[in-house]
Amino acid sequence: MSAARRMVVVGGDAAGMSAAAQARRLLSADELEIIAFERGDHTSYSACGIPYWVAGDVEEREQLVARSPEEHRRRGVDVRTRTEVIALDPDDNRVRTRDSSGAEEWHAYDDLVLATGATPLRPPIPGIDAEGVHGVQDLTDGEALRDAIARLAPDAAGDGDPASSPLAVVVGAGYIGIEMAEALVRRGFRVTLVDRAPEPMTTLDPDMGALVREAMNGMGIETVMGQAVTEIETGDDGAVRAVRTATGRHPADLVVLGLGTSPRTALAEEAGLPLGASGGLLTDRAMQVRGHRHIWAGGDCVEVEHRLTGMTRHVPLGTHANKHGQIIGSNIAGDYATFPGVVGTAVSKVCELEIARSGLLEAEATEAGLQYVAVTVEATSRAGYYPGAQPMHVKMLAERRTGRLLGAQIVGREVAAKRVDVVAAALTAGMTVTDVVMLDLGYAPPFSPTYDPVQVAARKAAAAVRAAG
Amino acid sequence: MSAARRMVVVGGDAAGMSAAAQARRLLSADELEIIAFERGDHTSYSACGIPYWVAGDVEEREQLVARSPEEHRRRGVDVRTRTEVIALDPDDNRVRTRDSSGAEEWHAYDDLVLATGATPLRPPIPGIDAEGVHGVQDLTDGEALRDAIARLAPDAAGDGDPASSPLAVVVGAGYIGIEMAEALVRRGFRVTLVDRAPEPMTTLDPDMGALVREAMNGMGIETVMGQAVTEIETGDDGAVRAVRTATGRHPADLVVLGLGTSPRTALAEEAGLPLGASGGLLTDRAMQVRGHRHIWAGGDCVEVEHRLTGMTRHVPLGTHANKHGQIIGSNIAGDYATFPGVVGTAVSKVCELEIARSGLLEAEATEAGLQYVAVTVEATSRAGYYPGAQPMHVKMLAERRTGRLLGAQIVGREVAAKRVDVVAAALTAGMTVTDVVMLDLGYAPPFSPTYDPVQVAARKAAAAVRAAG
Repeated sequence: MSAARRMVVVGGDAAGMSAAAQARRLLSADELEIIAFERGDHTSYSACGIPYWVAGDVEEREQLVARSPEEHRRRGVDVRTRTEVIALDPDDNRVRTRDSSGAEEWHAYDDLVLATGATPLRPPIPGIDAEGVHGVQDLTDGEALRDAIARLAPDAAGDGDPASSPLAVVVGAGYIGIEMAEALVRRGFRVTLVDRAPEPMTTLDPDMGALVREAMNGMGIETVMGQAVTEIETGDDGAVRAVRTATGRHPADLVVLGLGTSPRTALAEEAGLPLGASGGLLTDRAMQVRGHRHIWAGGDCVEVEHRLTGMTRHVPLGTHANKHGQIIGSNIAGDYATFPGVVGTAVSKVCELEIARSGLLEAEATEAGLQYVAVTVEATSRAGYYPGAQPMHVKMLAERRTGRLLGAQIVGREVAAKRVDVVAAALTAGMTVTDVVMLDLGYAPPFSPTYDPVQVAARKAAAAVRAAG
Repeated sequence: MSAARRMVVVGGDAAGMSAAAQARRLLSADELEIIAFERGDHTSYSACGIPYWVAGDVEEREQLVARSPEEHRRRGVDVRTRTEVIALDPDDNRVRTRDSSGAEEWHAYDDLVLATGATPLRPPIPGIDAEGVHGVQDLTDGEALRDAIARLAPDAAGDGDPASSPLAVVVGAGYIGIEMAEALVRRGFRVTLVDRAPEPMTTLDPDMGALVREAMNGMGIETVMGQAVTEIETGDDGAVRAVRTATGRHPADLVVLGLGTSPRTALAEEAGLPLGASGGLLTDRAMQVRGHRHIWAGGDCVEVEHRLTGMTRHVPLGTHANKHGQIIGSNIAGDYATFPGVVGTAVSKVCELEIARSGLLEAEATEAGLQYVAVTVEATSRAGYYPGAQPMHVKMLAERRTGRLLGAQIVGREVAAKRVDVVAAALTAGMTVTDVVMLDLGYAPPFSPTYDPVQVAARKAAAAVRAAG
């Protein structure tokens, strides 16, 4: 046997398995042994794809799996599924595991990668564990939800009597909540969306969130905003009957929880690793846990730095997790890569409505001590005379005095969401809104007015900065 | 009468009328008199929209007119149509005009704006002035072409016998040429596209241009590449019969010229104003003609600086013309604005194919003395498992050693073209390809894989930079 170094990965999804794959690309099995422990059965799947699987856009669970445990093994990564890591021992560079038979074992590592992901929030509401209450965190959740839908709404074509349609209540009006609401409408449910926030999508300012609510109402989704869930009411059979808020009762055959997540870092906390305010692990730019040589962390279990505020926060997104994994794998293999932080970009879709943001909301700017002007414009996706041009709302924040771009939010229809990418690049570069107006963006009548909607907003923001003094 | 300053504008399209409108927004008629001379009948129209009007996507000519002479007049701009400026006299700050009656007159100015646009290239080929040979430069051209199409192809539904369809030859396979080829196919013509270049779209590298040719062939457009037109053959009636190249004869009932344009600067040249290699006016950053206080120029009659090479070039695009006009109007009115140059972004569409570029082609990089690596990737527009994901080819150039992004070209289907905007922003900011990989771009399954196609290309380019040493 060779004296290979050993890399141990905890968590078999995006960050962990990207790290494993990248390290394996750079080093042979003689140079680096790679063992990955995964509690469940699956590796490298797209949790972001679950709403589309539930909706029926994606038919087979396997389509969501980018690389199965067997495929990873063929590439030289020793994946051990149904094996939970139950303790970390940073002082002795080892982790303790328990497999499905209950057997426990210590495993030494030279480099440890923590990619334990996030855990869905489940507030202590009466009835939250009742039959018929579903999360949408992993493939097992997705499978259970698909089965429940098939039982309740065998006729998904939606041509039946609406009054006899099954009832669903989605709790939480963030990305997952609105995607699930759409999925359930398309599967033939009458859907009510409940959130304690005044408008859906608290990742947007309330005035932009209102546009999302109006669009959802327009597609027949009832929205109950500004009301926290107080109880999930069950019948004698233990199954869900309704969702109660302080002032209302919303009958439900099915409840879906989309309340967000928190970093899954109990083991790391027990081992004394540094955590941020959200409970996420704190790393340096190389994705090494602060103060701990040879322990790396990435994906939904860490906090990332926001480039505009310098503060760390929990931003669970597959795109960050993939980058983290690639960086960790490169660094463990002796190459060099760093993560520069995020600018808070997110995009989503509910039916034809596209929703995007990048940078800071008004409240976030204020929290960071930044003074700003905010403007909103309505522009069109294509030249006004070109068929199919759609209205698009763009809200933009610029720093007072300097005119530095601080953020944008977009709600529109065709090709609205990905327009936020140019905002993300401009934020990363520290551009002013005047710089954005002068960007050489693509123009042709089928794609844009002569000033892109993002630039229309930037022009107005530049004027507002001058006026604000 | 007040002692208002007088601003004289030569040319009533995008740059000139944007300048007039912006100056009027900032100054009252008591402060600034604005006179605009236009040779033709129309102001502020979208020349870029003409192919879509010919195709029938846009029905009415008026839809292409953003602001008519009368609308400009109501806003306090004294527009004089059918009035040609026939001489500039910079020494005495005056211009000479000739109106439709033939009367000539001198007009003094305090500030002069040259926005004379571009003139279509018409090589001295026998038969080029024959009946049935059409340009597509202005609304009059568009009207003539629509009339000709209506005579030749009254049944545009395309359900007739293809063998009896009228024949069109489009000379020139650039943006206008491919857009016109599509328009004519949709109006029921059998279309042949002829160009002396080896592949269509010389704004792309030939390997990317080949993808466009293949797609055009797939939609039934015959492409004759690498052959210059030697003659336009006419019949006894003086009307066009065919287009001849060195080795072929291509029968035609209609010929459309899409050979590009050159700056319309004969007057400026006579007046001794500075011109670049393409014949375009040379300006400073404020869009003032170099060395000439109080003469400003913008739009298709100027050369602009390419930010990556420091060289000036002729880039006739409505988006630049609008910006130039806004800047000129601001500066004349005593505000302050500058044009930072271009990065060479262009987008186009032929049927479902979307085509985009920003930055430098291989030949352009070499001409600028830049050593580079080039990579090409095929990625998908959405998560691979999401319905409707389309393949997309992205070619990327990065500078040797530094890894600085030098350019990208994209050929794909849905939401391919506007992805180039993030490239434009990254080029403007001077980012490396590694910076691009780490950009916080929007990710959700309906919009993108976890790495956007632009980032997939950037990853490969970063690896190529390392390998090239």
